[in-house]
Amino acid sequence: VRVHDLPTPALLADVAALDHNLATMGARWPGRALRPHVKAFKCTALARRLAERGHDAFCAATIREIEGLAAAGLGADLLLANEVLDAGRLGGLDAHITVAVDSEATLDAAARAGVPAVLIDVNVGLPRCGCESAEAGRLADLARSRGLEVRGVMGYEGHLVGNPDRDARDDGLSTALTLLRRAWEDVGGPVCSGGGTGTWDQNSLVTELQAGSFVLMDTHYSRLGLPFQEGLSVLATVISGGTTRGRRYAVGNAGLKTLGMDHGNPTIDGAKVWFVSDEHVTFSPDDDADTPLAVTVGDRVRLRPAHIDPTISQHELLWLIDGDEVVDRWEIDLRGW
Amino acid sequence: VRVHDLPTPALLADVAALDHNLATMGARWPGRALRPHVKAFKCTALARRLAERGHDAFCAATIREIEGLAAAGLGADLLLANEVLDAGRLGGLDAHITVAVDSEATLDAAARAGVPAVLIDVNVGLPRCGCESAEAGRLADLARSRGLEVRGVMGYEGHLVGNPDRDARDDGLSTALTLLRRAWEDVGGPVCSGGGTGTWDQNSLVTELQAGSFVLMDTHYSRLGLPFQEGLSVLATVISGGTTRGRRYAVGNAGLKTLGMDHGNPTIDGAKVWFVSDEHVTFSPDDDADTPLAVTVGDRVRLRPAHIDPTISQHELLWLIDGDEVVDRWEIDLRGW
Repeated sequence: VRVHDLPTPALLADVAALDHNLATMGARWPGRALRPHVKAFKCTALARRLAERGHDAFCAATIREIEGLAAAGLGADLLLANEVLDAGRLGGLDAHITVAVDSEATLDAAARAGVPAVLIDVNVGLPRCGCESAEAGRLADLARSRGLEVRGVMGYEGHLVGNPDRDARDDGLSTALTLLRRAWEDVGGPVCSGGGTGTWDQNSLVTELQAGSFVLMDTHYSRLGLPFQEGLSVLATVISGGTTRGRRYAVGNAGLKTLGMDHGNPTIDGAKVWFVSDEHVTFSPDDDADTPLAVTVGDRVRLRPAHIDPTISQHELLWLIDGDEVVDRWEIDLRGW
Repeated sequence: VRVHDLPTPALLADVAALDHNLATMGARWPGRALRPHVKAFKCTALARRLAERGHDAFCAATIREIEGLAAAGLGADLLLANEVLDAGRLGGLDAHITVAVDSEATLDAAARAGVPAVLIDVNVGLPRCGCESAEAGRLADLARSRGLEVRGVMGYEGHLVGNPDRDARDDGLSTALTLLRRAWEDVGGPVCSGGGTGTWDQNSLVTELQAGSFVLMDTHYSRLGLPFQEGLSVLATVISGGTTRGRRYAVGNAGLKTLGMDHGNPTIDGAKVWFVSDEHVTFSPDDDADTPLAVTVGDRVRLRPAHIDPTISQHELLWLIDGDEVVDRWEIDLRGW
């Protein structure tokens, strides 16, 4: 099958970019030093490709992701890097599960569910989950008193990973990692988990990197100039208008339901994207581009998304492509909750 | 089952609001004068509820929606109100199908596929699909020469329906409907299809209204002050922080993958939403509210989405609620393409 023959909209992954990104990340974070975050791609086939490279300890954000990884035989070491109260669903799974906790309520939920191990989740500057650094030791003691194994700490510098200014990331990291280091000293245990694609070569503290976006990237992360390649796109068919023969704009059949929009519009090479509606993208040639896009009805265009995670989560399938050839088809099987 | 017992995140629909909205719309646009747009809700169970009220001619934006409606026995009169080139998938369905065309390529696709009927899609001001008004008659002739039944015209004033200024909507409509009327005169046929929730009582031309958002509304449409009630919300559990006892913010377990974000953040009554990330929403009490929200870990909060269509399309299930009781569970079965 050739790319041009796929029904549209279709989510495409460039195999060469994927392999490049996995090799690049794996050289710095080999084996279980990388804990790939499946929330970015929600696909056990991609998780398996990572496991084959030695990265067989995964990170997840939802119980459904943990259930799916376990069912796929990828449950050697799963971290639910998120607080949950309905931990009962985790107790019976055939997998070794660790869950993040940041309060008495969440560690009680883990203990009641029979989840064997926890990480103490520490707030390192992002106003989201995580206890105060100074509170981590007390929570660890409490967790141990409930019979839980405390493997260490976790802290995610989500307020820094998207900043395109490398020095600013470094400055922020110094504060964030001080908080995390202090908490780790109080908590103990072998694991300090954290980091992300944006700080992959700057986070000097963590024993395992929680990164996911690097696998296929997006236009937002690409602003950072990292050595990972953009490999994700949404293929659309031009169904109306055109950018040749004096027409002002063209319309592709991929819209809001195919794209994460929180980081803004997708990008089409050689074109200016005017707006995206439920099922459409309207665009015109970018006359400032080296090659302004020239298309007519029936042609295909590729949209590069601004945010990988909520783009992939809207698709059932990911088509793997090598140039113009479709080489595989992976199910996005970890969607939902 | 009570709402509080649902696993979260969960998509909720208030039955009373739904019934109110269907009754209100049906009083003005009875029976097939309303052509409900299933792209808004992607659910055959909700389509069936509309059909039971006499609205059994539907409008769709994707082939998958048409396939699903036909398979559910709701294929009495289906309009694919969108241009498609892979119309071959429509030809064999057990349904009466009409498809929108705005070019020779799209009407050729319909003719080749054996789709019996078309509407000529006319651009009435939104830079998206639709031919120029003056071109409609020529396309109709061409369609008839290919053996297609031309039922009339379609034109969607999508550039107007979200404008909260009623007078501005009226002004824009006068231009838009002039274009559509002229095209209809050239094309002929009994059908003039168009309009939407935002112009439901202002569009004086169309013979059938294409509206979908009115069923459950969203915060964006609610700015218009229409007599339809917001009935859609995403239920989240507070998993970290809290807004009582001196805490600055709380975190709910519903994020970007549960919400259409193109119209901005969701709303939580009594709270200020700080930001939404992949699996989380961070919020604090709104001290200017009559009742600032006070929650702690384990409590539930409801997010009212800014855009109904790309919110519903991210969920597998819609839970129908009557007060605190869950009364039904509908599958969102028209997702995908």
